[in-house]
Amino acid sequence: MLFSRRSIFLRLLPGLAGGAAVSALPEAVGANTPVYPVQKVVYHLSEPTRVNFVMGNIKNHIDGKGGPEKVKIVLVIHGPALAAFRASRASPDLRRQTEMRAVDGVSFVACGNTLKALKLQTGDLLGKFDIADEGGVVRIADLQQQGYLYIRP
Amino acid sequence: MLFSRRSIFLRLLPGLAGGAAVSALPEAVGANTPVYPVQKVVYHLSEPTRVNFVMGNIKNHIDGKGGPEKVKIVLVIHGPALAAFRASRASPDLRRQTEMRAVDGVSFVACGNTLKALKLQTGDLLGKFDIADEGGVVRIADLQQQGYLYIRP
Amino acid sequence: MLFSRRSIFLRLLPGLAGGAAVSALPEAVGANTPVYPVQKVVYHLSEPTRVNFVMGNIKNHIDGKGGPEKVKIVLVIHGPALAAFRASRASPDLRRQTEMRAVDGVSFVACGNTLKALKLQTGDLLGKFDIADEGGVVRIADLQQQGYLYIRP
Repeated sequence: MLFSRRSIFLRLLPGLAGGAAVSALPEAVGANTPVYPVQKVVYHLSEPTRVNFVMGNIKNHIDGKGGPEKVKIVLVIHGPALAAFRASRASPDLRRQTEMRAVDGVSFVACGNTLKALKLQTGDLLGKFDIADEGGVVRIADLQQQGYLYIRP
Repeated sequence: MLFSRRSIFLRLLPGLAGGAAVSALPEAVGANTPVYPVQKVVYHLSEPTRVNFVMGNIKNHIDGKGGPEKVKIVLVIHGPALAAFRASRASPDLRRQTEMRAVDGVSFVACGNTLKALKLQTGDLLGKFDIADEGGVVRIADLQQQGYLYIRP
Repeated sequence: MLFSRRSIFLRLLPGLAGGAAVSALPEAVGANTPVYPVQKVVYHLSEPTRVNFVMGNIKNHIDGKGGPEKVKIVLVIHGPALAAFRASRASPDLRRQTEMRAVDGVSFVACGNTLKALKLQTGDLLGKFDIADEGGVVRIADLQQQGYLYIRP
């Protein structure tokens, strides 16, 4: 046999830039206990009533995986939920949670369309937000296409 | 080496009918900037309070990708949200939005179970709906299996 | 040609433990009508107001696929929705639905963090729950990584 299963995958994997298919494949192909690569997850938040719940879910996700180096989380916020992250109005608890998750490596993404609708700029938000000029829903879809799993609590 | 990375993929791809794995793979395997195929997304709508929000998300998605030819969107509606699409009761704004998105190529799918529960037929709905006789949730899962990304705003 | 498309896949498949990529691939690679393997779906429930809706969705999913042997469903419950499954307070209808779905092979998973917050143990819940000690959201992500499709009604 010219190609072992493993050798075919090793040949295929290096050229692939984070497709869903690839990131979901166990690293140790053929092993009894597959070892998955670092999990990548996009969290989707739009409802203002679910802000604290989602922030808690993300903390639990990191803890449950065994630490911030075990999972890469992107939180994409669009719609009315984004208003909760205005620095001038955010609760002290949300401010603290946002800071701690940023230290953990969580990326915060604000929908550019929502920012315009709310007449806000990135500097008006807590912490360090990346702006999705293409829109929050497009960012969510693009991240899935790059291998991110999707959770909408 | 008998198979280049690219040649193996080119051999595999033509025979595959839209599996999630494949549609998510960048077209230019091995390139520095992967080019993804046309994005396919299934939007999931069940809450009546989220009808207008989701219709706006879909418009933003198309705009954010650069036009209707850049993304294939299917909107699957089940549960109480479907009642908002009754032609006899729909708001003028929803009627207009539904018409414009249909022109953009968005597919509207109504859950067959919900239609029965509401004692409605497809002709009672705005525009042109496809009926999911297998149920809205099955349609959503089947579309994912065919490579559609999932967004539930 | 040393490897047919099919033979490469047959060589690759046995060594893979349910990666999303693989489970989403049609079984009959190259056939005009792809035959997908048994569909695996993780349902996500966190809102107490959506308990009955989700239980109905799962019943419809099984019926719509043609029976319990055609789909493997895992229901992961976290947050306030879990309280509805307390044996001492659950409605007779929810008790009956939970029993019937268990007979259908649906797996019920309770978030370990939520159980602690509610000061509940697995024996306090209806039927037979698996506890996700790693947390409900981690379980949801891990199941997706193992090839489960995601539905959040």
